[in-house]
Amino acid sequence: MPPKYQQLADRLRKAIEDGRWAPGDQIPTEIELRDSSGFSVNTVREAIRQLVNQELLEKRQGEGTFVRRRPDTFPVLLSDEEGRRAADLPGDAYVSSVLLRGRRPEVGRPHVDVVEARADVALRLDVKVGAKVVTRVQQRFVDGTPWSLQTSYYPMDIADGTDLIRPGDIERGTIRLLEDLGHPQVGYTDELTARMSYPDESAFFAVTGAGVSVQVLWRTAFDAERPIRLTVTVYPADRNRLVYHIGSVPAKYRDRS
Amino acid sequence: MPPKYQQLADRLRKAIEDGRWAPGDQIPTEIELRDSSGFSVNTVREAIRQLVNQELLEKRQGEGTFVRRRPDTFPVLLSDEEGRRAADLPGDAYVSSVLLRGRRPEVGRPHVDVVEARADVALRLDVKVGAKVVTRVQQRFVDGTPWSLQTSYYPMDIADGTDLIRPGDIERGTIRLLEDLGHPQVGYTDELTARMSYPDESAFFAVTGAGVSVQVLWRTAFDAERPIRLTVTVYPADRNRLVYHIGSVPAKYRDRS
Repeated sequence: MPPKYQQLADRLRKAIEDGRWAPGDQIPTEIELRDSSGFSVNTVREAIRQLVNQELLEKRQGEGTFVRRRPDTFPVLLSDEEGRRAADLPGDAYVSSVLLRGRRPEVGRPHVDVVEARADVALRLDVKVGAKVVTRVQQRFVDGTPWSLQTSYYPMDIADGTDLIRPGDIERGTIRLLEDLGHPQVGYTDELTARMSYPDESAFFAVTGAGVSVQVLWRTAFDAERPIRLTVTVYPADRNRLVYHIGSVPAKYRDRS
Repeated sequence: MPPKYQQLADRLRKAIEDGRWAPGDQIPTEIELRDSSGFSVNTVREAIRQLVNQELLEKRQGEGTFVRRRPDTFPVLLSDEEGRRAADLPGDAYVSSVLLRGRRPEVGRPHVDVVEARADVALRLDVKVGAKVVTRVQQRFVDGTPWSLQTSYYPMDIADGTDLIRPGDIERGTIRLLEDLGHPQVGYTDELTARMSYPDESAFFAVTGAGVSVQVLWRTAFDAERPIRLTVTVYPADRNRLVYHIGSVPAKYRDRS
């Protein structure tokens, strides 16, 4: 038998999952929950604390406790680079995909730097640890809301002397630029993991409290021979859903959201 | 300028990311950190609390604070179902892929049930909310450690009267069984999000404290016409890394871990 606060937390969570309490709803007060559940106020408090930690509830100062409103999650299609290129859409994949869904994309001015490759970057770019690499950091927004944080890494022998090492946007997109530089992208490997947001990320994503769960996507792009770019993107889970279509998915099921 | 505890937390996090403090290392005491950093003990304590929340440090009762040891993360290859089927490997994809890496797979006995489809399940299986669906829940282990929790949902008109609705393993694997039932899988859509583990999951994954970040994969499998299965898998981020190869990835870069 789980502890009492756990039993209550599970019961409240179920009310949210079943939709009996909808996003944005104010939930009953601690006293009301004590009376309706038969548990003590301390038990009620502990159960609510757990659901706040799980990002299901949020406390608003002086107002009460509410079912956390999930922003309209944006489906990020990660499997269609090939298709998109075939369709010959211009420039940045992110901008195109947001526009295609009738939303307003916005990207911050890229911050360009030269840094020494950490072990995890060096492994993926197949360069020595400590080798110089070019980084481009960019903030991305949907409809004015911060949506993702992206850092791209380029091997110095590819980036040096090109637009990649210069500040400013690359109008034609980096995939096309790399192609022009003799490094056509033929495929990529995506590696995904999850963690809580770091404070600088929480600040950018305007998250308060303990942070928000993020998915971190490590995308290594290859030409026929070698890695040509590593892109690390941090997606807050409360406003993104990462999507892959593999094989042949019937057309009517490809664009659900 | 961020608050002092934040400055210190960022500095300590960097020490871990740079490898100056390695997984399993004991970090200095609060007093030592106070003396070396010049910040107050309260500031030190708050910085450490933040890194514990971020799953970078862990406190061990009566021993001290340690850099959290990441178990050997297991790369879960999610893009190769097609290739695996072509290679005609037997049975369960999970078992095959763990064996291929020289690790020991183990799956719990499936728990089979008939439930009413919640909205999120109904949407993906293209059935009415509340329609009866068959669920099969299975625990998965690698080398004896709990690795993932999987729940599969089947539309009743496909599962009824078949092995899918009966308890027990399906030796030939469910993909082959669905094929024999006239529903050959031609593709799938993966949707990924992240959150903190729920208590029942934390208990299974043997996680203490506030839980662990998990990735949740919703895989909808299709035949040429319709969804034939939905599989929801919960992967704790501390022991899994989800991998997709898209397009043509040079062979020497396909199997890094």
